[in-house]
Amino acid sequence: MRISTIASHSSLQVLMGARREGFETRLYVKPGRKAFYSSLPLVDELVVTEDMGAILEDDGIVVPHGSFVAYLGVEAIERAKARFFGNRRFLKWETRFDLQDRALEEAGIPAVEVVEPEDVKPDGLYFVRLEGPRGGSGHFPAYGRELEERTAGLGEPYRIERFVDGVYIYVHFFYSPILNRLELFGVDERLIVADANKRRPFKVLPYTIAGNKPVALRESLLPELYDHGLAFVDALRELEPPGVIGPFALHFAYDGEFHCMGFASRIDGGSNAGHWYSSIYWGEPMLMGERVAREVRLALEEDRLGEVVT
Amino acid sequence: MRISTIASHSSLQVLMGARREGFETRLYVKPGRKAFYSSLPLVDELVVTEDMGAILEDDGIVVPHGSFVAYLGVEAIERAKARFFGNRRFLKWETRFDLQDRALEEAGIPAVEVVEPEDVKPDGLYFVRLEGPRGGSGHFPAYGRELEERTAGLGEPYRIERFVDGVYIYVHFFYSPILNRLELFGVDERLIVADANKRRPFKVLPYTIAGNKPVALRESLLPELYDHGLAFVDALRELEPPGVIGPFALHFAYDGEFHCMGFASRIDGGSNAGHWYSSIYWGEPMLMGERVAREVRLALEEDRLGEVVT
Amino acid sequence: MRISTIASHSSLQVLMGARREGFETRLYVKPGRKAFYSSLPLVDELVVTEDMGAILEDDGIVVPHGSFVAYLGVEAIERAKARFFGNRRFLKWETRFDLQDRALEEAGIPAVEVVEPEDVKPDGLYFVRLEGPRGGSGHFPAYGRELEERTAGLGEPYRIERFVDGVYIYVHFFYSPILNRLELFGVDERLIVADANKRRPFKVLPYTIAGNKPVALRESLLPELYDHGLAFVDALRELEPPGVIGPFALHFAYDGEFHCMGFASRIDGGSNAGHWYSSIYWGEPMLMGERVAREVRLALEEDRLGEVVT
Repeated sequence: MRISTIASHSSLQVLMGARREGFETRLYVKPGRKAFYSSLPLVDELVVTEDMGAILEDDGIVVPHGSFVAYLGVEAIERAKARFFGNRRFLKWETRFDLQDRALEEAGIPAVEVVEPEDVKPDGLYFVRLEGPRGGSGHFPAYGRELEERTAGLGEPYRIERFVDGVYIYVHFFYSPILNRLELFGVDERLIVADANKRRPFKVLPYTIAGNKPVALRESLLPELYDHGLAFVDALRELEPPGVIGPFALHFAYDGEFHCMGFASRIDGGSNAGHWYSSIYWGEPMLMGERVAREVRLALEEDRLGEVVT
Repeated sequence: MRISTIASHSSLQVLMGARREGFETRLYVKPGRKAFYSSLPLVDELVVTEDMGAILEDDGIVVPHGSFVAYLGVEAIERAKARFFGNRRFLKWETRFDLQDRALEEAGIPAVEVVEPEDVKPDGLYFVRLEGPRGGSGHFPAYGRELEERTAGLGEPYRIERFVDGVYIYVHFFYSPILNRLELFGVDERLIVADANKRRPFKVLPYTIAGNKPVALRESLLPELYDHGLAFVDALRELEPPGVIGPFALHFAYDGEFHCMGFASRIDGGSNAGHWYSSIYWGEPMLMGERVAREVRLALEEDRLGEVVT
Repeated sequence: MRISTIASHSSLQVLMGARREGFETRLYVKPGRKAFYSSLPLVDELVVTEDMGAILEDDGIVVPHGSFVAYLGVEAIERAKARFFGNRRFLKWETRFDLQDRALEEAGIPAVEVVEPEDVKPDGLYFVRLEGPRGGSGHFPAYGRELEERTAGLGEPYRIERFVDGVYIYVHFFYSPILNRLELFGVDERLIVADANKRRPFKVLPYTIAGNKPVALRESLLPELYDHGLAFVDALRELEPPGVIGPFALHFAYDGEFHCMGFASRIDGGSNAGHWYSSIYWGEPMLMGERVAREVRLALEEDRLGEVVT
């Protein structure tokens, strides 16, 4: 059995996990990235091509990640012949404001406040969030008085949120249909270009993600987050059957309360940061990509593969 | 033999360690937190109750952490029938300014400067620290000219410190009576709500702790910190016999020099961040909660349990 | 066979790795640091002395790190009788601007822009970088209008760089002559005193390094960094034969593009932060210091020690 993915986002941990669980691996990589990926002792078959669409006909189990929608589009993924780990119809839910809102509302998870243009105050600080698979860039904070000018050139849907005066944390979950268990796998914080302001006089800088850093959240905050995770799984079971399978993430601003800013409906890049919480469930630290491969193996052992791929 | 604790603060690592070292586990959890804690394959007996005081009569070895004093109070803990890991009379030392000062002074550890109200300058930046088991919230920075107004509503003892222009680091130690050895287990940095200022125009925000992040301190700083740790252990042996047993932490502001801001007289929540320094002593990464269970096991093996519980 | 080093910088991981790979260890330590280092169960022979120069006649394999040039000087190291892991003539390349520039230019790695004094604009923000083995302190940011005053007292060579509005990341590589393979081992971010500005109104503060924090860089950025690493290895093979052996690091500012600020021509202190990328190559997390010892063992097994020591 083979696990296949695209060389980007979180493919390193997916490949490492696949190997550890005894799978062969196939990786689709663009020519410009070949030197790095071909140096890794993790890949059985390296498919070097400019056309990432080739993975849509792969005969292994395809593990989608945060680059899939950007590279391939939601429709091509939903139509593809290949078998995908997880519920492939769930992938689109993170890409549109209306679907995001519906999922959070159905789950009862408190969302960050959206501000209508007529309610904007000149001296208020806001956050302009762009819709779609943005790869973590394009969003920006702005004062009300600057909003008209700064949103004028935007060529895509966006909305204005209240700027939450707090820290932003990203919570990684894995829902296992095989074990019927939700696992809280870890928490990260993004490293963004605008973080440069921790060392210099303030300047408006891009909210472009450069990386991720592990965070051990206060333990007293975990039960509430876990409840949100459970509610999210329950909600999606109704909204997009068979619901969530495998990894997802909830994104929160925290100022003493949690305000959900969105979610990832697949493995989140922030899981690259790693975390020891996985040891709680598995006795040893495990990356989310390894957890995916573990689930596939468990499913195969019980002859239940159909419950974890679509 | 059973290890028991309260579901909060650092109980995940305490439970995980207990299991690894072969102990049974009992966890006291409030009903609102049941979903999370009951999902973990770490707990042999889950006592769901609003009354955390039930642990005071537990027949296992109780591992106290940062929520114990807030939930139970110093006096109830000191009077309890249960056996506590560590020196239970040491727990109160972090909760009062006079005891903190005495410990640091006796150990010769340089403390952050306390400023008398009459010495406050209008344009100086200060840090207002509240006394007691605060769970990492309530403290705040303020300019001298704002102090009167901002401290007016405080209903509890506080003091004014010089604001140290530097980074704040938390150093985790374990003193083993069984091995007669002080171990420097790791260092973390807090993630606080006010860290939001790394991305936005400055605003006074709460110093509420959201989480912890691991730090690898410059190695050249470790010998000095280790000396402070040794001195602290020596001082407490006199001040509160039998002295420190097991985990404690020293909290420093660092601006090129270390200025001690306080300490934790039990496992510090920042040890949740994890660190590889434990590998130095034990050959593999180990969380502080695991170290506690290891000490209990070592004590049992040598029939010296009385040296690590009170 | 024995591995020897000086008690500072990254000696903990060097010692731990040496032990794991089956070597004896010898550590040269200053008397003021004895308490800490003598408490560690990692050292076979502790040489307590004020004179670090004693290591220049050591009969083991000496692993140099970031304190060596500061303690011993480039010339003494190049002349020493002892065998050094790696290419000892490469050590000087990080210590002078002209050598740094030559290496980056030859490798084709984009460097941060150096600004000539006559091109400085009063309102522009700049970064003043001091030459030499600074141990991560002394550099500072300043506006153009302040430059004359703030550089007046500098007693050593410096230069003025454009201040990059971004995050600073440090990329750790290991080049193995035995495996003929470049390994991307991890990425860290520095914790510096000036980071205090993430919690307070802005103030010019020292860029003194206090520690390091692990970062999981966006995976899509890794192939470009890996290509830079390969080019660097190729360039040094010509510039300083036999070229890079073992650990080195490239230091980048990232604002959407990478701008190289310099490099470490030996194990970089930031590798103390640890990283899981090592698992990609070795199946388990490994610190850079362990990787060094592994290379020595592999070389010994193949009777090729001469290829990894000079």
